[in-house]
Amino acid sequence: MFKEEVAERYKLIQDAICTGLEVADGKGKFEEEIWERDGGGGGRTRIMQNGAIIEKGGVNFSAVHGKLPAAVKKAFNVTEEDFFATGVSIVIHPSHPLVPIIHMNIRYFELNEETRWFGGGIDLTPHYVFENDARFFHHKLKTACDDFDKDFYQKFKSSADDYFFIKHREETRGIGGIFYDRLTPKNTDLSFSKILEFSVNIGETFLPIYTELMDRNYEKDFTEKQKDWQYHRRSRYVEFNLVYDSGTKFGLETNGRIESILMSLPPQANWGYNVNPTADSEEYKTQQFLKKGINWI
Amino acid sequence: MFKEEVAERYKLIQDAICTGLEVADGKGKFEEEIWERDGGGGGRTRIMQNGAIIEKGGVNFSAVHGKLPAAVKKAFNVTEEDFFATGVSIVIHPSHPLVPIIHMNIRYFELNEETRWFGGGIDLTPHYVFENDARFFHHKLKTACDDFDKDFYQKFKSSADDYFFIKHREETRGIGGIFYDRLTPKNTDLSFSKILEFSVNIGETFLPIYTELMDRNYEKDFTEKQKDWQYHRRSRYVEFNLVYDSGTKFGLETNGRIESILMSLPPQANWGYNVNPTADSEEYKTQQFLKKGINWI
Repeated sequence: MFKEEVAERYKLIQDAICTGLEVADGKGKFEEEIWERDGGGGGRTRIMQNGAIIEKGGVNFSAVHGKLPAAVKKAFNVTEEDFFATGVSIVIHPSHPLVPIIHMNIRYFELNEETRWFGGGIDLTPHYVFENDARFFHHKLKTACDDFDKDFYQKFKSSADDYFFIKHREETRGIGGIFYDRLTPKNTDLSFSKILEFSVNIGETFLPIYTELMDRNYEKDFTEKQKDWQYHRRSRYVEFNLVYDSGTKFGLETNGRIESILMSLPPQANWGYNVNPTADSEEYKTQQFLKKGINWI
Repeated sequence: MFKEEVAERYKLIQDAICTGLEVADGKGKFEEEIWERDGGGGGRTRIMQNGAIIEKGGVNFSAVHGKLPAAVKKAFNVTEEDFFATGVSIVIHPSHPLVPIIHMNIRYFELNEETRWFGGGIDLTPHYVFENDARFFHHKLKTACDDFDKDFYQKFKSSADDYFFIKHREETRGIGGIFYDRLTPKNTDLSFSKILEFSVNIGETFLPIYTELMDRNYEKDFTEKQKDWQYHRRSRYVEFNLVYDSGTKFGLETNGRIESILMSLPPQANWGYNVNPTADSEEYKTQQFLKKGINWI
């Protein structure tokens, strides 16, 4: 069945990414927890802590099914009773302040033959924005999209800008990336099989992108001030995830596996009062990049 | 006018608490920011950072008025256009892991002569629960309540248990305290003047309670492990405030002064994966106290 094929392909992506990240980190190992969901299905949560570069990272796979909670039916505006959902979710918090935080998610949701869709995306949250890295990141995403539809990158880039926005701070979480949801043959030129290939392609794009960004930055010297800024930027990451992120809210409201959902939160975050970098500082420059609509191509 | 009297009394409470906390801390000083609200009114945000005992604390006063935002009208189920609101809000994060986090709020809200009420409370979040301290804390609150109504403490204690509950963790934020809202002569035996006296009494109870708890604990030795646990407990404080706290949500949604609202967040918080204290440890013992319905009297 198609849904089983999706889950199998996603598992392979989880495996490949974990192996690749362990090699890139050189020290940290993922610890796995296999869990089962009361209502049906389960997952493989894999967490690395205190690696050489990765301070805390999660690469989680899940494939769950069962009765749709009433809240979800309402949110999705559907009347079906049964659901199936599978996905891979990644958040990596590096210890080095010049290596960016990265997030990836690919997911497939199915109610029945008629009502099913793919969603996902990759976005980057550098503590310090380096323009070369930002261009490299967005260029890679564009290439991954262009093979499937020349309009995807622009559309999904713009969705990521809108989605990863911290309204109360009036800033984006990072430099965005791509974000797509409810992709079906009806709103694309692609069959479901082809959308699966697109989804897998996004999954396979993650590792070369992130290992390149690790390689470019992890040997750079950094200062105490830069560590402080990293902890400050991480506090904004927490604010976004707890206040706005749909996946997190959905998970908390539907009694998801809390430790898997909140693996996205950083190992350490600091809230100073009224932190305002001085003009012309690197920190100030980074803040100027935390806006919607910047063209990195 | 009554509302102006309330605001004046609240200002005096802010002054007395700031002075008292500076004396108790012995090193830290409050820095004040006077701000004005676009729609009317303003406030005095006072923040202490890096004191001898208080790592980060806010003692904020505000008195704002203007047109009620549509979202608030809906939330309060009222049709009035104009509002007045004044209050004192306090959150203190001590650097010492054996000194508890404390929170106090007293507030008065008025739409018109007919529709107005008092709200507030004090609650305690020890990183480590000491039963003597917990009993002292609740006993002081009971005394402050009993002078006005013998039923207040039990009612408001139970409301605090319900309010300060982190649903997704199935634990209370701390050991509770008292929480009351929409107090009026209709639902009490007190006139508005008398409820103001109750509110002021709660405000005046804060300082002797917290300085006693500082005194009892700030000279104790502590370990690295206890600091780690403090950072862990603070992460739960962040989760409560960003996911559940009505005041925070209300502030973020209505474009309140963000730095004043989020002064409640700790200077540093850590999220480890799946932190589970071993049975019979002090940390485990503390967790067992994070439940509703414990009788501390």
